[in-house]
Amino acid sequence: MNKIRCCILGATGLVGQQFVRLLSGHPYFEVSMLTASESSVGKTYEEATEWVVGGEMPANVRALEVSDSRPESVLDREVSLAFCALPASIASDIEVDLAKSGVHVFSNASAHRMDGHTPILIPDINPEHLRLVRKQPYGRGFIVTNSNCSTSGLVFGLRPLMSFGIRYVNVTTYQAVSGAGRRGVASMDILGNVIPFIAQEEEKIERESRKILGVLDVEDIRPAQFEIDASCARVPVMNGHLESVTVNLEQDVSIEDARAALMNYTEEPQRLRLPTAPPQPIVVVGESDRPQPARDLHLEPPHNGMAVVIGRLRKKQRRLSFFLLVNNTIRGAAGASVLNAEFAMAKGYLNTDSEVSECRS
Amino acid sequence: MNKIRCCILGATGLVGQQFVRLLSGHPYFEVSMLTASESSVGKTYEEATEWVVGGEMPANVRALEVSDSRPESVLDREVSLAFCALPASIASDIEVDLAKSGVHVFSNASAHRMDGHTPILIPDINPEHLRLVRKQPYGRGFIVTNSNCSTSGLVFGLRPLMSFGIRYVNVTTYQAVSGAGRRGVASMDILGNVIPFIAQEEEKIERESRKILGVLDVEDIRPAQFEIDASCARVPVMNGHLESVTVNLEQDVSIEDARAALMNYTEEPQRLRLPTAPPQPIVVVGESDRPQPARDLHLEPPHNGMAVVIGRLRKKQRRLSFFLLVNNTIRGAAGASVLNAEFAMAKGYLNTDSEVSECRS
Amino acid sequence: MNKIRCCILGATGLVGQQFVRLLSGHPYFEVSMLTASESSVGKTYEEATEWVVGGEMPANVRALEVSDSRPESVLDREVSLAFCALPASIASDIEVDLAKSGVHVFSNASAHRMDGHTPILIPDINPEHLRLVRKQPYGRGFIVTNSNCSTSGLVFGLRPLMSFGIRYVNVTTYQAVSGAGRRGVASMDILGNVIPFIAQEEEKIERESRKILGVLDVEDIRPAQFEIDASCARVPVMNGHLESVTVNLEQDVSIEDARAALMNYTEEPQRLRLPTAPPQPIVVVGESDRPQPARDLHLEPPHNGMAVVIGRLRKKQRRLSFFLLVNNTIRGAAGASVLNAEFAMAKGYLNTDSEVSECRS
Amino acid sequence: MNKIRCCILGATGLVGQQFVRLLSGHPYFEVSMLTASESSVGKTYEEATEWVVGGEMPANVRALEVSDSRPESVLDREVSLAFCALPASIASDIEVDLAKSGVHVFSNASAHRMDGHTPILIPDINPEHLRLVRKQPYGRGFIVTNSNCSTSGLVFGLRPLMSFGIRYVNVTTYQAVSGAGRRGVASMDILGNVIPFIAQEEEKIERESRKILGVLDVEDIRPAQFEIDASCARVPVMNGHLESVTVNLEQDVSIEDARAALMNYTEEPQRLRLPTAPPQPIVVVGESDRPQPARDLHLEPPHNGMAVVIGRLRKKQRRLSFFLLVNNTIRGAAGASVLNAEFAMAKGYLNTDSEVSECRS
Repeated sequence: MNKIRCCILGATGLVGQQFVRLLSGHPYFEVSMLTASESSVGKTYEEATEWVVGGEMPANVRALEVSDSRPESVLDREVSLAFCALPASIASDIEVDLAKSGVHVFSNASAHRMDGHTPILIPDINPEHLRLVRKQPYGRGFIVTNSNCSTSGLVFGLRPLMSFGIRYVNVTTYQAVSGAGRRGVASMDILGNVIPFIAQEEEKIERESRKILGVLDVEDIRPAQFEIDASCARVPVMNGHLESVTVNLEQDVSIEDARAALMNYTEEPQRLRLPTAPPQPIVVVGESDRPQPARDLHLEPPHNGMAVVIGRLRKKQRRLSFFLLVNNTIRGAAGASVLNAEFAMAKGYLNTDSEVSECRS
Repeated sequence: MNKIRCCILGATGLVGQQFVRLLSGHPYFEVSMLTASESSVGKTYEEATEWVVGGEMPANVRALEVSDSRPESVLDREVSLAFCALPASIASDIEVDLAKSGVHVFSNASAHRMDGHTPILIPDINPEHLRLVRKQPYGRGFIVTNSNCSTSGLVFGLRPLMSFGIRYVNVTTYQAVSGAGRRGVASMDILGNVIPFIAQEEEKIERESRKILGVLDVEDIRPAQFEIDASCARVPVMNGHLESVTVNLEQDVSIEDARAALMNYTEEPQRLRLPTAPPQPIVVVGESDRPQPARDLHLEPPHNGMAVVIGRLRKKQRRLSFFLLVNNTIRGAAGASVLNAEFAMAKGYLNTDSEVSECRS
Repeated sequence: MNKIRCCILGATGLVGQQFVRLLSGHPYFEVSMLTASESSVGKTYEEATEWVVGGEMPANVRALEVSDSRPESVLDREVSLAFCALPASIASDIEVDLAKSGVHVFSNASAHRMDGHTPILIPDINPEHLRLVRKQPYGRGFIVTNSNCSTSGLVFGLRPLMSFGIRYVNVTTYQAVSGAGRRGVASMDILGNVIPFIAQEEEKIERESRKILGVLDVEDIRPAQFEIDASCARVPVMNGHLESVTVNLEQDVSIEDARAALMNYTEEPQRLRLPTAPPQPIVVVGESDRPQPARDLHLEPPHNGMAVVIGRLRKKQRRLSFFLLVNNTIRGAAGASVLNAEFAMAKGYLNTDSEVSECRS
Repeated sequence: MNKIRCCILGATGLVGQQFVRLLSGHPYFEVSMLTASESSVGKTYEEATEWVVGGEMPANVRALEVSDSRPESVLDREVSLAFCALPASIASDIEVDLAKSGVHVFSNASAHRMDGHTPILIPDINPEHLRLVRKQPYGRGFIVTNSNCSTSGLVFGLRPLMSFGIRYVNVTTYQAVSGAGRRGVASMDILGNVIPFIAQEEEKIERESRKILGVLDVEDIRPAQFEIDASCARVPVMNGHLESVTVNLEQDVSIEDARAALMNYTEEPQRLRLPTAPPQPIVVVGESDRPQPARDLHLEPPHNGMAVVIGRLRKKQRRLSFFLLVNNTIRGAAGASVLNAEFAMAKGYLNTDSEVSECRS
């Protein structure tokens, strides 16, 4: 099989580097273009990038010349798939232009997440939402987004509990500095400190989680109906968003049944054995003081940072409480979009000869 | 007025040092005895103590010889008041023996907090609970406890909202390492990490907050009836417990009214102008990203670490959310007991010539 | 005495805020103008500034309107003295223009430090260097600089040892993030890390320390002749530069004599009892594991962050080793220039009616 | 080949865990016994150990019952080789008793390092020192030690420069908290702080480095003759000791020649391709701000934490300065002893049928 030529938009930043790392040696996709901002254009990727995501920079991208992110530049390079790690304000128009030109865009940017015809896809959670792209007015191309990084963890804690009826969710986060990007949090602000505010984060968690867990009707996504309060804070941790969650359920489920529902949860990516899918999307830990960001990110195979780790299940009345940990730059960003592209591929959505509307599924 | 001779039990630890610092030059109390564990006995306080609570060790205690904590030793020294910073397991019997011997014990230890006849006193919150000591079977002496450090912050966020009817409280904490004592948290466990567990902390918050906010009937305290879920975690912060709180109210109060109720709240310590009482027990901050432990502990006069700082008030339906910050070693520990002793003094409970049952109030 | 009207250039940054704090209620100087970059101009200082240097923003500056830093703007305001906290590249021309217009400039910027006619003044170290301003070609105005922050600590460790003959100095630093300014060090770079490089820092230490400790001949400063190697690193500490120093001496001085030379050292600022001068410029600590940045900055009176703290004196052959700690934003920046201005005042250099060349001293 | 049965003494601590990790699946050695202190004896290794060295606890040791560390217990288990991660005070007698009983002891403890007949072996540095064990009075058994963790890095920076003549060494360290063991550094002491003291560390660096780089005469090791000053400090870093080094050389070598000498350095472990030997014992990095503990530990293959990383080479006169980084728990502890055992094996010293004195080499 020929690999699909793809482009990474915003490749020098933190999420961009994770895309590069995760796509190195990927069985379906081949990175043939890297873009970045003005100051990097024309340099090799090695010159333009301070590599901070661990290990060595993959050999195959070192000498690639960094391009600008204009749609024309992308189209010149005959890539049919783009992974987007650009800031939302820049990404908004570029993604639409690329989709209109027939490119399949898998985006970490928040710009189009709440568009009515754009899915926030997590194939382990809402695989059926991919069908929404058929409604997009872009011709052969489309835009699929992944969720906000905190949201990407939360919905794994909620999805297996949906069958018990979720009335209300209260979530408080401990978010790593990497979630704000390479230079997003100044050290003077966070050393020995907690900052109880992240711009737009609480709003994103509240609206994205309801959309992701919503039902795809013929035409639209009907958001899940639970109430939700999110409180977000930054902590002096490098990687990994920890979240304290309480869920009010309709049914009086036992802790054992709740635990079983979480730990046995699987969906299409597991059945399809997609390359980036973790064998277990949710790992439930039993130790009394876990999960911890410094110890439980499960970066090694087979999880590779794609599992959400849950611990400390407790229950009072019909309220279930627990802590969950999500790898914000992998499951919450680059890894999420790579898995989305793999899933779209497996479902026939990347067939470049035909219209999206003809794909199976 | 002659100052009351007092003793600090467990004076070399972190909370003990705060007692020493806060009682230096105190208008009512004079430190005439300091106790510590075996290895310190017989040394001067200066030799026995690595001073870590800021500023210089007060000159008046440097040469005091450290005693053991046995009740006999304390009684030999003719102190009539004891501040207790001992671990709960050691404090339990010692406090009872001292009370039986006529000593007024103000304790930071958790040992007797849930005893039916022992108040968890916060005079800014539940001043009337002090009367409970009349029921204690100890003769002239008594035991008054202060609350757990996280609880001491939470109840300030709740007390002014009681008039709106509290149905449910959800609190998630970001707790400083100083809360675990001088060597309580190993650096390998917390550098760049969050530990989502603190032994017994969630239980203490849940039961102590209901007791503190309960109603004193003729004989007993009837705990407040709201439901509460607490989730506690340790963060790499030196001082200051931050708490994310959501409160379900019976009434549909506006954010403005809630803010006013919090910021205008005062109680007896303010009216009595007790030496350790902050002019405002609750400081409401307006900045979008505060309070922060590294910036908002209000250690300077006039608050001296005794104010609870609240910010980020938000509301959905009848659910009010906010963050609060409490200085865990001062308002949550030593300062709390010093204020309790001042309040007991002002109310006539330290009158050493007479029975407790005769005191006014 | 009428206070001298002064201006703070670059008042919203970290060093600028320290200037504001230190000059609040100052007996000689009155802040009548504050400047900052374009985005702050026209706002009040309170609106333009996120106050991060502790305590409350002084009441007298809150409502001051922030101006731009052009010399014309400064001259319009009839200030005769300027404290400069601007970046070197911007400060260079502005300082010259102001001096030419008769303003006395006390600068934390490095731009003019190595100019032949400009002193790097530390009145506790090289008070006689102030005379160098007479050679400046600026008319009534002049420029006096303070040293680089690490250098400001080092020279206190060296000056009292000069009488024993210094042959060689080896210094390795542990520098706080505040040394790089408000947003200078990204948290992703320094959390749990050490960065063994600070641009131009080693060069500054090497050349500035020799100039400061040099001899003022009739016309010029002849730099001190010792060899020196500096190695600089950033550590995850908020405030306080720690330095490990080894000095090769010509004489075989005992540790006791070296300690006495350090701890008894005083100079003109102490004799003149200048407002910002610490009673002891060097505090020698005896504990085996001090000084520590988190514990020994001596921020309280009487030192107010202006003392350099030295500990762990050791000796082998004629090599003396020790650790020293300097408060980088006070003794190493704003406090240094305030003390310089006080010293210039005491020496008659701020007499605004006459030429500098007429001043006494 | 049958694997050699070995024992890990002190297996539950941090260095003990590294031994377990490094010996999992080892081609020469098989862990058949694990010992720990009283409170762990009788538990399985999984029950007794909080695994903190990354990845999963190896499956083969989970169910092993933890034994006590008495020599009798060890001898009962027919192990012929022991890796020792015990504290020095406990290790001292146990190691001698085991050696006398014919066991080959490879020890991370400092107890016997300075014994005249005991090598501090680093086969990449002083392979010939292994012969010293023939002089030990223990019969078939022997004791081989690895160096102190900081020293293990320093000697790699010095060894390739020996041919240029070393006159004087000045080293200042930035040491990770893991160097003090699992609970060695309290978080209240190190968060946002630097502690300029580590008990006995400076002395160990000074005497061990001279012994390691000394010459083995017929009978004894003649220590290297350079002067050395070490200054040691703890920093809030999890793993990796960074060291700032200045070396006075006799010859006027260029930076290029010094760099080449460092980066091309190899010794017997590389020629013998020992399993734990890094292909390059010294990695020289070219970036201006490296090596950094959080980024350059080279934990992945092929270095596996066994390479010492050097950067920022600078020169003045005949003084060469640089920073080096060593993985303190691998190259500076467990990995060092594993490599020593591999080297002893390759050299015929572990031949259990014969006397040590008969081994080749």
